[in-house]
Amino acid sequence: MSESPVVTSPHSTHRVVVVGGGFGGLNAAQRLRRTDVDVTLIDRRNFHLFQPLTYQIATGSLSPGDVAYPLRAVFKSATNVRVLLAEVADFDLDAREVKLADQPGVPGPRSVPYDTLILAAGSSYSYFGHDDWREFAAEVKTLESAIMVRGRILRAFERAEITSDDDVRNAEMTFVVVGGGPTGVEISGQIGELARDTLPKDFRRIDSRNARVLLIDTGDRLLATFPRSLSVKAARSLERLGVTVMLNQTVVDVDAESVTVSMEGGARERIPTRTVVWAAGVTASGLARRLGELAGAEVDRAGRLTVEGDLTLRGHSDVMVLGDMVRVRDRSGDAVPLPGVAPVAIQQGRYAARLVGDRLAGRSTAPFRYLDKGNLATIGRGRAVADLHLVRLSGLPAWMVWLVVHLWFLIGFQNRLLVAIQWSVSFFTHGRGDRLIDEAIPADDRLTPGG
Amino acid sequence: MSESPVVTSPHSTHRVVVVGGGFGGLNAAQRLRRTDVDVTLIDRRNFHLFQPLTYQIATGSLSPGDVAYPLRAVFKSATNVRVLLAEVADFDLDAREVKLADQPGVPGPRSVPYDTLILAAGSSYSYFGHDDWREFAAEVKTLESAIMVRGRILRAFERAEITSDDDVRNAEMTFVVVGGGPTGVEISGQIGELARDTLPKDFRRIDSRNARVLLIDTGDRLLATFPRSLSVKAARSLERLGVTVMLNQTVVDVDAESVTVSMEGGARERIPTRTVVWAAGVTASGLARRLGELAGAEVDRAGRLTVEGDLTLRGHSDVMVLGDMVRVRDRSGDAVPLPGVAPVAIQQGRYAARLVGDRLAGRSTAPFRYLDKGNLATIGRGRAVADLHLVRLSGLPAWMVWLVVHLWFLIGFQNRLLVAIQWSVSFFTHGRGDRLIDEAIPADDRLTPGG
Repeated sequence: MSESPVVTSPHSTHRVVVVGGGFGGLNAAQRLRRTDVDVTLIDRRNFHLFQPLTYQIATGSLSPGDVAYPLRAVFKSATNVRVLLAEVADFDLDAREVKLADQPGVPGPRSVPYDTLILAAGSSYSYFGHDDWREFAAEVKTLESAIMVRGRILRAFERAEITSDDDVRNAEMTFVVVGGGPTGVEISGQIGELARDTLPKDFRRIDSRNARVLLIDTGDRLLATFPRSLSVKAARSLERLGVTVMLNQTVVDVDAESVTVSMEGGARERIPTRTVVWAAGVTASGLARRLGELAGAEVDRAGRLTVEGDLTLRGHSDVMVLGDMVRVRDRSGDAVPLPGVAPVAIQQGRYAARLVGDRLAGRSTAPFRYLDKGNLATIGRGRAVADLHLVRLSGLPAWMVWLVVHLWFLIGFQNRLLVAIQWSVSFFTHGRGDRLIDEAIPADDRLTPGG
Repeated sequence: MSESPVVTSPHSTHRVVVVGGGFGGLNAAQRLRRTDVDVTLIDRRNFHLFQPLTYQIATGSLSPGDVAYPLRAVFKSATNVRVLLAEVADFDLDAREVKLADQPGVPGPRSVPYDTLILAAGSSYSYFGHDDWREFAAEVKTLESAIMVRGRILRAFERAEITSDDDVRNAEMTFVVVGGGPTGVEISGQIGELARDTLPKDFRRIDSRNARVLLIDTGDRLLATFPRSLSVKAARSLERLGVTVMLNQTVVDVDAESVTVSMEGGARERIPTRTVVWAAGVTASGLARRLGELAGAEVDRAGRLTVEGDLTLRGHSDVMVLGDMVRVRDRSGDAVPLPGVAPVAIQQGRYAARLVGDRLAGRSTAPFRYLDKGNLATIGRGRAVADLHLVRLSGLPAWMVWLVVHLWFLIGFQNRLLVAIQWSVSFFTHGRGDRLIDEAIPADDRLTPGG
């Protein structure tokens, strides 16, 4: 039985530790493969998740395997990259070590030494400080939660079909989506399509087209980061899919049987529903706050750490932090948040890899600059909005752009091909292949006991 | 709020209730669609599961959506068929009603009346009376359990990679499969292939090819229902994949860290392992025993109910029971078990539908007779054994037969195409697309806390 308190590197070269296998970390590690640095990629999951499409799991349009790809498969032939399935618990900035959480029954390294640390641990949804809402209002950002939402949506229709109580049936057929950003727009459009196009012939007692899909946002328009004209088009497209867009309304309570909103003027309305999808209020990984404490760096209300123009932590040039867990200082020294979208993380991950190379070669690197190629949000089959700066698209042309961009970026040959086939089939048939109510979900959400 | 204690039929025609959406129930209901009987199909799950391939989920060769297909999608355009997602709790044979389990929060029918009942609720694994082993020795017969096994197998390699303790590493890299029937042969072959062909380049510290895969059976040969020559060929093929075949050995204990076997002569051996797959000792659905109590019919040690030659329950000609939950009386009156394979259930489901039609038309029906077209078991990529009675095949020819048969029977155009593509890709690349460790599994089996 050998003892090794730290992970020892097989090489004596520069050691880069990348935390997080999302877009930022994955792209950093990919740009560093087959270089002469030694890379350790740490993630809690064994897969990279294509987050922009994860919501499609929740309505059965795509299968989990279509949007998730094993990290080890990505780095199979990159012998300078090793993947560790572990959770980061803390940092020792002086000793330059990442501390790992304990894995019961698996004696092993508790820290990983680095020469350069690239931290890209992402964000999750906050619940406006109401963590008790999480149980009833699941998100569609993680794979497991999206699978759970799929089960909830499909089970709601099943219960509506079986019940003899009109109030229960109405509540089961009411779907509330909180948050009018791209994810909220996309998931509410998908639920609308599911109810109107995919399911109508599946049931005998209920008419799934009578389902109510409510999209709630506190602001006065959807897609606040898009030009106003596209917000209006998105709302119109959603309403054509049967989605009720509720603007200027704030969610003040969520429980197992309802959502309560506060309207302008302070009036409150309780909406009976059994299915709530949460797509509002992002908060950075807790590792940002921890690093802020250790380094004395600023952390904003959304938990985002402020980093320098080259993504490094002030006073710790060997630590880079990127993606939607940071705000980057601009030339005037102000901390500016960038949109929490994949292209920012991808560009920052590649920048981080370049900075490592430049430093080792003794070259200087200009500060990071985000090249904004535009914004895309899909609304349903053949409908999207696209703000490409020079040109604004909506409807089918925007959707074609969306389709090409997403297929292009889906890593892995097999995934891309399978997804293209699945989308083509469902585009022409309105069918959704993966409409499974997966029993591998929390026991209290099951319809029937197992065994 | 309306009250309806029973599900009322929209037609006043003959009402057939089918319990179970497996091969038997699905085929019965499919043969009855677009006839003038009124069909209600009840299942606990919203999907039909292609059980002969479910084990492929456990090694990432196929995705859940490839082997599971929504029942409602099958009967979309069959307006005389309704699907109920519910659990059957009991029967009232005199009132001719199926009693449903309570669904908390969903007031609705608690019983479904029938004129003919077709019960096809299948079987599950028994654990030789040791239900406490189930926690450590999961099966690959249900979708959720196969997904769990996938997580366990992949996580074992991850822990082996990370640990610094040689004993822990050896235990993590030992995989025990209990039961040398087709499922045990198939899953152990798949684990062997995963370790030898798919994973070797994924890890940096461990060599996945050193994994030990042990296949344990109490009998003196594998595949006891096949000709002896094919049993020998299967064992040889497995050993070429690195599987150790342990015959004449009985499992006497299973816990979180080991399996203990008793060998010939009574000597015991404790095998340290963290991953046990159970594929032995089938027991019929508890509904068989319940029906036996109600009707005074015989139930054997494996929980199988004895039915007449026309699959009806003695004294209750309006109740038919079929699949691997029954033994069928032959001409001499002896109750004979048929193999617990899909073709038996398919043929019996179709027979049940024909009997319903014949009775309504006043025709008589000859007793059920199983047309045995042969037996197939796959061992790995390009290897199988096939007993087609007139001809016995092994190796690639047997595997080609296996491939064609399974693709043919996989229902749903999209599934068949996607599976064909996935298999083709992995045949040529040794890759497996769906190697995800799904966190949607029991919390105590997680490596890291969520959130």
